[in-house]
Amino acid sequence: MAVNGTTAIVLLSGGLDSATAAYLAAERGFTVCALTVDYGQKHGVEVRSARQIAEAIGATEHKVIQLDLRSFGGSALTADIPVPKGEAAPGSANIPVTYVPARNTILLALALAYAEAVGAADIFIGVNAVDYSGYPDCRPAFIEQFEKLAALATKAGAQGCGFKIHAPLIGMRKAEIVREGLRLGVDFAKTHSCYDPDEDGRACGQCESCRLRRQGFKDAGAPDPTRYARSPG
Amino acid sequence: MAVNGTTAIVLLSGGLDSATAAYLAAERGFTVCALTVDYGQKHGVEVRSARQIAEAIGATEHKVIQLDLRSFGGSALTADIPVPKGEAAPGSANIPVTYVPARNTILLALALAYAEAVGAADIFIGVNAVDYSGYPDCRPAFIEQFEKLAALATKAGAQGCGFKIHAPLIGMRKAEIVREGLRLGVDFAKTHSCYDPDEDGRACGQCESCRLRRQGFKDAGAPDPTRYARSPG
Repeated sequence: MAVNGTTAIVLLSGGLDSATAAYLAAERGFTVCALTVDYGQKHGVEVRSARQIAEAIGATEHKVIQLDLRSFGGSALTADIPVPKGEAAPGSANIPVTYVPARNTILLALALAYAEAVGAADIFIGVNAVDYSGYPDCRPAFIEQFEKLAALATKAGAQGCGFKIHAPLIGMRKAEIVREGLRLGVDFAKTHSCYDPDEDGRACGQCESCRLRRQGFKDAGAPDPTRYARSPG
Repeated sequence: MAVNGTTAIVLLSGGLDSATAAYLAAERGFTVCALTVDYGQKHGVEVRSARQIAEAIGATEHKVIQLDLRSFGGSALTADIPVPKGEAAPGSANIPVTYVPARNTILLALALAYAEAVGAADIFIGVNAVDYSGYPDCRPAFIEQFEKLAALATKAGAQGCGFKIHAPLIGMRKAEIVREGLRLGVDFAKTHSCYDPDEDGRACGQCESCRLRRQGFKDAGAPDPTRYARSPG
């Protein structure tokens, strides 16, 4: 299939950031093909959220790929390691235990395959290097390097198609992302950020992701529509 | 887990090339963790072959990961596109229709996740740039670029671990790989190369992969142990 400039693959996790990135892709005029990777994270509620966001932005397709990263382990999100509550999760070299080995490399590789199959040259990912500065695969240098790899890795690249990895939120603070999302009309009640929700899909309010999200709404002066398992302290 | 220099992840497809790469990793003194990705290729017989090779080299672990790339399509190996018989499969820009979009990027990304989870710094992949010169993700420039990405993509990389992607067969002709495999004691009867085997797992003898393999045994002056569906012409 010929490469065109109008279709974009959007990696959609179901979280606040990727939802905002998806709305941005739509605002910029891209026809969106959404991709969600169900990698065996403890909280399947993310996939339901992703479906709702894909529907809300009128995605042409929404593919949900199963890939069980629990088989490898090595992360609090995929193995029997408790999700830390409170301040930034401890880990070596300031990298949180919620880091999933090579996660964004895998996600971008799958998005690249999808892009090539549908003839898209643009990929959106909602990574953020401010709040997630401890995650190496959320940093600008990683995104730039992946873009170089994509050109060498593919048939489309060999035919002169330069892939563009869009990471529009990479330099924003959480409150800025919340404001940007509200401007775009993102229904944040449909998004899910908690690393450790209860059985009803309600957020714990205590993990790193919940704390960042709650503080983001507070700093943005916006109401927090999150359903918490108990009233946050 | 601490990074060490003794464990290597070996991507094992069940084919002749990756089997030889696996034996080389073992000969070089690495403890092998084998990784097979069942990506929905038409021939599940590859996974059985991979299990036998992993056992033969005494791999510490053999993980088989399910990842259904048929969902994306775009290749004769994963979609309803006939596997070409005869000469090199036609495709645009001299890239065969058996090319699977971004396949080696995905395989290496998964190997990187596995490496990081077990503390390995070495990854073996049996790519070959001579017979598969039409596949962009079999070329040295791609492998070098992935190595650079790996350092930026991971927690281990941030801690100063340089990942090494070993592609020991990249510059060999098929006959050289056959000779190298025979020297190492690879039981090629256990390997499977055909893109389009019959229901009993017998090779078609006609596809690009069968032709390369058969010619390799012939040029190496070695008996071909392949079970063909019918006597090759």
